[in-house]
Amino acid sequence: MYRIINRFTSHPGKRDELIAAMTSDAGSMEGYHSFVVAHDATDPGVMWLTKVWENKDFWQASVNRPGFKESIDVAIPLVKDWGTTVETEVVKVLPD
Amino acid sequence: MYRIINRFTSHPGKRDELIAAMTSDAGSMEGYHSFVVAHDATDPGVMWLTKVWENKDFWQASVNRPGFKESIDVAIPLVKDWGTTVETEVVKVLPD
Repeated sequence: MYRIINRFTSHPGKRDELIAAMTSDAGSMEGYHSFVVAHDATDPGVMWLTKVWENKDFWQASVNRPGFKESIDVAIPLVKDWGTTVETEVVKVLPD
Repeated sequence: MYRIINRFTSHPGKRDELIAAMTSDAGSMEGYHSFVVAHDATDPGVMWLTKVWENKDFWQASVNRPGFKESIDVAIPLVKDWGTTVETEVVKVLPD
């Protein structure tokens, strides 16, 4: 499975609005496993998103959908720092 | 929910051994939701671990268990760089 880890920083006071924008189209899509959104425990403007897909092709298809583009257009002005994007290959999920 | 994101680097050729050590006691524990182990897609020695617990207290209890100490003792000589540990507070899980 393919997992992306993103670390974003929102403009002050815009974190929840940014999370809403980024999850607005995260409905059921082919090959989609999970999307977890979390606040950084020490830095209030920072959020960590992890998305798990069956493979990278399914993820690529998702970012080419109209719904994704619309959600990103809403998100862009709310993002202060796009931070980190890490691509990973899931090797173990527990409990299995 | 409480989620920890860890980024480790193993000594060359020790990644799978390290993963085995770190997941050896990851059985069912109170308040434990998930443990995902992934390889970094670009750096072969790096792995990303994410653990989700109901709250931080359950995670704290888990690291005080004998089983955890034993697994860490095995892991320590295999770790080249302890890298990053990020504490986060999960605010959204999709699909819900």
